[in-house]
Amino acid sequence: MYELHFAVPMAGAVLCTFNTRHDAPMVSALLKHSGAKVFLVESSLLDVGRAALKRLADSEPGAASIPVLVTISDDAGQDSGRAADYDYEGLIKSAPSEFDIRWPADELDPITLNYTSGTTSRPKGVVYNHRGAYLNTIGTVLAYDITPMPTYLWTVPMFHCNGWHLPWGVAMQGGTNVCLRHFTAALIFYSIARHGVTHMGGAPTVLNMIVNAPAADRRPLPGTVRVMTGGAPPPPRVLAEMEELGFAVYHIYGLTETYGPATVCTWMPEWDALPAEERARLKARQGFQHVAMEEVDVKDPTTMESVPRDGEAVGEVMFRGNTVMSGYYKDITATKESMGGGWLHTGDLAVRHPDGYIQLKDRAKDIIISGGENISSIEVESVIFSHPAVLEAAVVARPDDHWGETPCAFVKLKDGAIATEAEIIGFCRERLPHYMAPKTVVFEDLPKTSTGKTQKFVLREKARAMGSLTKTGNSSKL
Amino acid sequence: MYELHFAVPMAGAVLCTFNTRHDAPMVSALLKHSGAKVFLVESSLLDVGRAALKRLADSEPGAASIPVLVTISDDAGQDSGRAADYDYEGLIKSAPSEFDIRWPADELDPITLNYTSGTTSRPKGVVYNHRGAYLNTIGTVLAYDITPMPTYLWTVPMFHCNGWHLPWGVAMQGGTNVCLRHFTAALIFYSIARHGVTHMGGAPTVLNMIVNAPAADRRPLPGTVRVMTGGAPPPPRVLAEMEELGFAVYHIYGLTETYGPATVCTWMPEWDALPAEERARLKARQGFQHVAMEEVDVKDPTTMESVPRDGEAVGEVMFRGNTVMSGYYKDITATKESMGGGWLHTGDLAVRHPDGYIQLKDRAKDIIISGGENISSIEVESVIFSHPAVLEAAVVARPDDHWGETPCAFVKLKDGAIATEAEIIGFCRERLPHYMAPKTVVFEDLPKTSTGKTQKFVLREKARAMGSLTKTGNSSKL
Repeated sequence: MYELHFAVPMAGAVLCTFNTRHDAPMVSALLKHSGAKVFLVESSLLDVGRAALKRLADSEPGAASIPVLVTISDDAGQDSGRAADYDYEGLIKSAPSEFDIRWPADELDPITLNYTSGTTSRPKGVVYNHRGAYLNTIGTVLAYDITPMPTYLWTVPMFHCNGWHLPWGVAMQGGTNVCLRHFTAALIFYSIARHGVTHMGGAPTVLNMIVNAPAADRRPLPGTVRVMTGGAPPPPRVLAEMEELGFAVYHIYGLTETYGPATVCTWMPEWDALPAEERARLKARQGFQHVAMEEVDVKDPTTMESVPRDGEAVGEVMFRGNTVMSGYYKDITATKESMGGGWLHTGDLAVRHPDGYIQLKDRAKDIIISGGENISSIEVESVIFSHPAVLEAAVVARPDDHWGETPCAFVKLKDGAIATEAEIIGFCRERLPHYMAPKTVVFEDLPKTSTGKTQKFVLREKARAMGSLTKTGNSSKL
Repeated sequence: MYELHFAVPMAGAVLCTFNTRHDAPMVSALLKHSGAKVFLVESSLLDVGRAALKRLADSEPGAASIPVLVTISDDAGQDSGRAADYDYEGLIKSAPSEFDIRWPADELDPITLNYTSGTTSRPKGVVYNHRGAYLNTIGTVLAYDITPMPTYLWTVPMFHCNGWHLPWGVAMQGGTNVCLRHFTAALIFYSIARHGVTHMGGAPTVLNMIVNAPAADRRPLPGTVRVMTGGAPPPPRVLAEMEELGFAVYHIYGLTETYGPATVCTWMPEWDALPAEERARLKARQGFQHVAMEEVDVKDPTTMESVPRDGEAVGEVMFRGNTVMSGYYKDITATKESMGGGWLHTGDLAVRHPDGYIQLKDRAKDIIISGGENISSIEVESVIFSHPAVLEAAVVARPDDHWGETPCAFVKLKDGAIATEAEIIGFCRERLPHYMAPKTVVFEDLPKTSTGKTQKFVLREKARAMGSLTKTGNSSKL
């Protein structure tokens, strides 16, 4: 995947990387929506890949739109040649050693396509262009102090917003990449010590894993390790504990629609003298746009006026500039909706403090962020709704010490109908990637507004009061 | 001048900064050529400024094109209000506290105008645009490892290529600027220690001043001080001695036509283990383009083919990309001549080594670089030619321990005519900025090619054999 971040654009094509946890129906839907011509699959994911291709072929018999399959051997040296159409390494070996790079005709030509929320019915594919990708790579490198010849440890998936643009950023600074197939806290500490890691990315989930690692799994850091975190505001307690361990945490914020990192909680030197708790509280905030993003603002979405900088007035975080996406692929309606008034509407609610810093107050109403991945509650709800016993359903985020959040479903059953929590969860897992299925199901009447809309904020309060489902200190595959 | 790098573009205007050593005729010529509307002059330069305005008014009586004069008090707190049209601080005080930034209509709109070689007859004004200035600022910050919150010591004049884009670059990284009106080695060491300087720029002349400072003038460095040097390949001996003192030298190369810094001698970690002399020899080379310049090459200007990478074949250094100037102001012919085949022709000769690094072999044939400033030998020659006793003249660079180079004139007098060295020098100083006047004059027949062209390379050899005019260790105003 690292090589393909270079090879595909240099071949004049558009790179589209899939979440490795997607199931065959999702992969099939995304192959179809994206119009992929070549489908490169690592051998460990070949079963899902083949099933997706078969599904695609079944749904469109005889279609010429079935992509060519190229298999990639994993680094354990397994043979990937089982009946593959093409073998990646073999193709490279047989290719001419010189070739002409196919430069984009226009710098706004697409370079990658990034699906934000998988759904088999209406995939949302964010299009990045060459200009934006170049600029966001630079912006991220500068915001994150990626000094020359870094050693970068990958825990943020490379399929997520182009790995926050660090496949390109690490190369730009002449760095070394340390890639792990799966990771645990012990493996993170080992890799840092073994390879002299200087930089790593990590969702708050990963930070939580690190600070809760048992003593036996820990190793002394070889030097300061800079960690870029984002995806959800990290709990101040975790930030303080990371600092104690010798990590320098960079708190960034952005969306797939902003090419990933867009703002950073710029650190003021005078804050160094504050107590650890206060420092962590300040670091949990955002933030100013990096050098490649033109402007971030917190606005009233109705009037498009900036909210006062009083730390109290809530508005919507909005962006404009070169590192806002070109748009959603094949979805002009969604593109227009998200870009009203010339600004990208993030759906994230925030206040602005008198010092100009932004504090996120609420995630977008319908998005749950679990392990750094976005889950649209609407998609999960639509599956639950499809269960024969269900009358109404609403899914909200339940805070979680390990995952950040997990999906929590509130369900009202039809009169006389019967269903258990396990049954609803199992039903969802059959129809969605496992990480999208609710981990909690509560049966009750849903609170409504006078106009009949479900009052999700009431449900969020209830889910928050439940506390964390996962106990901290667990290791996990992300 | 620092403030004006922001204020002028934000007002929608184009900034044009003059060499503070220019005399009144030159300033008058540049005011006229540039079409300046507002002329801001610091009080210490007010005599030259007023004389230039008078000259301009005399040459075009009644013209509406005479710029408005705004005087700026210098930092010694002198009163600048003597009969000035406007006072800078007074204007700021009386201005409204809020204003709308006038953004450029197009990112290729000009942002600054930079005169490379002053001449009263044909000034050459390099036009930078917003896009290029933004990108070169980023490229320089990255090539030079300007980490966040640097403390930058100014010895490279801010009027030179927009101060290598560091007025913007230092601000971008939240840095502190240490500005000196004049400097000596003692003042450089003092400033570094006093302000905790982390970065500074300096022509090889400045490096030479530092390594030759007497022990009494030196102070221990508070930490590694990164020095960006360029303008001429620094002598390996000076590089080695700088390293011993604790400076980290970044050797960059570029021209006014490339927005200043364009390539950098990227350091390979394995070179750390080499002997000091070998390290210095490697560091005296160039170099690869920074991240904002598309491409540098060494080409045969006739065929436009790249020279082989053998360290022997000499070609011309050429650039293309976003950080090549828009063109020469009001000079389409010169613009076209410099851009043949889609590449900027630098006039600098170089070889390319097998490892891809470039080594400059010869400066452009007619350019002398003295104290970091370009002097066109053709301009000096044209003045000498105008002396009634002179038949022929050729000016070349004489190597100089302090200035890097000084202009050395070879003159053939008319039959029976008489002139002394002092007379020629005085004649030039009356008609040129003092730094452009020759410091040496040799009377002799000029060597010619079969087609009658002066063989400058022969004269350069002679001037080289003379050795340095200035003895090292002298301090000076730059």
